[in-house]
Amino acid sequence: MNVSILGASTSKFGELWQTSPRDLVKDVVAESIDQAGVTKSKIQAVFVGNMLSGTLGGQDHLGAFFAEELGLSVPAMKIEGACASGGLAVHAGVLAVSSGLYETVLVVGVEKMTDHKPEEVAKALMGAGADAEREAGATFPALYALMARAHMQKYGTTEEHLASVAVKNHYHASLNSHAQFPFTVTIEQVLKSPTVASPLKLLDCSPITDGAAALILTKNQVPRTKNKKVINIVASAVATDTLGVAQREDLTTLKAAVNASKKAYEQAGIGPKDIDVAEVHDCFTIAEIIAMEDLEFFGKGEAASAINKGKTKLGGRKNGTTDNLIVNTSGGLKAVGHPVGATGVKQIVEIYQQLIGQSGKKQVEGAAVGLTHNVGGSGATAVVHILKRE
Amino acid sequence: MNVSILGASTSKFGELWQTSPRDLVKDVVAESIDQAGVTKSKIQAVFVGNMLSGTLGGQDHLGAFFAEELGLSVPAMKIEGACASGGLAVHAGVLAVSSGLYETVLVVGVEKMTDHKPEEVAKALMGAGADAEREAGATFPALYALMARAHMQKYGTTEEHLASVAVKNHYHASLNSHAQFPFTVTIEQVLKSPTVASPLKLLDCSPITDGAAALILTKNQVPRTKNKKVINIVASAVATDTLGVAQREDLTTLKAAVNASKKAYEQAGIGPKDIDVAEVHDCFTIAEIIAMEDLEFFGKGEAASAINKGKTKLGGRKNGTTDNLIVNTSGGLKAVGHPVGATGVKQIVEIYQQLIGQSGKKQVEGAAVGLTHNVGGSGATAVVHILKRE
Repeated sequence: MNVSILGASTSKFGELWQTSPRDLVKDVVAESIDQAGVTKSKIQAVFVGNMLSGTLGGQDHLGAFFAEELGLSVPAMKIEGACASGGLAVHAGVLAVSSGLYETVLVVGVEKMTDHKPEEVAKALMGAGADAEREAGATFPALYALMARAHMQKYGTTEEHLASVAVKNHYHASLNSHAQFPFTVTIEQVLKSPTVASPLKLLDCSPITDGAAALILTKNQVPRTKNKKVINIVASAVATDTLGVAQREDLTTLKAAVNASKKAYEQAGIGPKDIDVAEVHDCFTIAEIIAMEDLEFFGKGEAASAINKGKTKLGGRKNGTTDNLIVNTSGGLKAVGHPVGATGVKQIVEIYQQLIGQSGKKQVEGAAVGLTHNVGGSGATAVVHILKRE
Repeated sequence: MNVSILGASTSKFGELWQTSPRDLVKDVVAESIDQAGVTKSKIQAVFVGNMLSGTLGGQDHLGAFFAEELGLSVPAMKIEGACASGGLAVHAGVLAVSSGLYETVLVVGVEKMTDHKPEEVAKALMGAGADAEREAGATFPALYALMARAHMQKYGTTEEHLASVAVKNHYHASLNSHAQFPFTVTIEQVLKSPTVASPLKLLDCSPITDGAAALILTKNQVPRTKNKKVINIVASAVATDTLGVAQREDLTTLKAAVNASKKAYEQAGIGPKDIDVAEVHDCFTIAEIIAMEDLEFFGKGEAASAINKGKTKLGGRKNGTTDNLIVNTSGGLKAVGHPVGATGVKQIVEIYQQLIGQSGKKQVEGAAVGLTHNVGGSGATAVVHILKRE
């Protein structure tokens, strides 16, 4: 698909009451343009990933909004697909560059959620779900709790297994200065945290977050300096499934994620064993376990104990295992935070930084191939990208 | 850009209280797929143009929503850019097909507006505008009234000139069974209708409408039957401007429309004189006058009297003029109605039907090249497409 990443940036994620969406975006865009070493005038189009600006903020038309703010009058549009809005915006950027109509484009993901009452945010988020489930009073924790129960029943997954996802991702986040929760937690703390929707506890859930992330995509890049590493997007795949979980045959897998990843591996001409580092959509701890299996990193029912044994944790390789896949080095949605429209873009920023070797304390040594997995709603949309160092 | 239209359909536009967005979309998609002569399984991606489903209807995630409804599990996303959402969705579809990642895609535009209180709709629509203007209490009629006053002052445009746009478009709509207002009006009726925002009266304004439209786009088509006409999209251009009108140098032109149309003419390798038929964004009568000038169909200050003389009206050619451009044969936003996310798609459906010669009573004889002009907000986004019969 001949698309390279020229620059990538993410804001601090958290409760950023003092920062407007405008300012959040301004900073990440400036930083990614700076990294890219291009002038603003090279940006030929803007794709904005966002879900809730209209519903919560009364501001739609975000494409033109940010194009104006950046002093650009270029083509711009907002892309929405619930919590997969960011991943879809990257996909749209890939289509734009691959089409030949645009050479260099900016992809921005942004969400401002913490200025609103939690019940308003929860209601707005259910806009990603099915009518019937929304009307029945379901929330996303409840829907993922159903998946967790099904997985526990079928594969013997335990609450401690779930907790170990949170423990790993909080450990990674403790190495990430941009994280909303840059501290470690213990299995005991997770298990003792208040129940949100049994078996999911507070520390099994990703938080409500403000944040932004940006990428500059361009036609296959020629390295202009000897030291500049070239990172290509070698797969960009999307799939959909029913909005409601009630319509699905199996609650222990997300069919859209399975289909998107199969397509992505095919596009890239590689398999799950070739992935060194991955950012997956751990909106709830069970979601990471299911993702590990949907992406074929582990066989069905085998991911939970592997995660529990630390196989996907930084430093995990040193434990003498042969696995070389480290997952959610950023801290994942769980501990970095989940500003929904920004998440899918931030995942790619994290993998890009890993592949150019600039992840600092959370660097996966020698990482050359990375994957991102971004999910909308309870799995109605899935977006998988694969990045590769040239 | 190697993109052809295989099928196109629009629903009845109007106050469709008895019809859900789901049913509106189902019908236009079925009809466009039927026309295209393809099976559903050939549809590889879905692009949905919509602005207000989240804000007014509590339902986001429309890409997956409609993909599910159609029994497709293909890649899908919603595209938003205020009243230009439909045009932007077509642009995204063009990028998708041009990219080579997808061969055949479905573009759907849809909006359901009349189930809500007018003041809720007016507030939601202002999400397309600038913070400052929204907070100052501006509405879109007020902003376009400012443009009308500026145009009257600079070019001597009169209230009767404005009214003549409504008269023409209502006449066209009287030939269109899908129109919300399929009846004629007189200059006197327009001038005597209640003032909304002086100088704009009720009959200068497009209405609040429910409706949907769909297109099937594919890689350059090979005619499979002798009689099948091949219609190509030969230009797809987008430009943006400031969200607020206060930041603009000149209120008598929309810079985004000027820039998008220049780019479109360049892509198509043709000029304004080559256009036989156009659908332009007449959200208010003044908008059509400004569009005529922005698209270079007439010199600055010359469009109003040309429209008044019937030069862009069906049958206008027979009046002995040399102009061969007929505008808003559908009836325009003014008289067909303006379901915001559907409008930009419906414009292309109208031009497609003109170019294949199936516009019935509103057919522009021999039309071979057509243009669409779709505007978001008060001109912050403009999308111009040019279609050509092969």
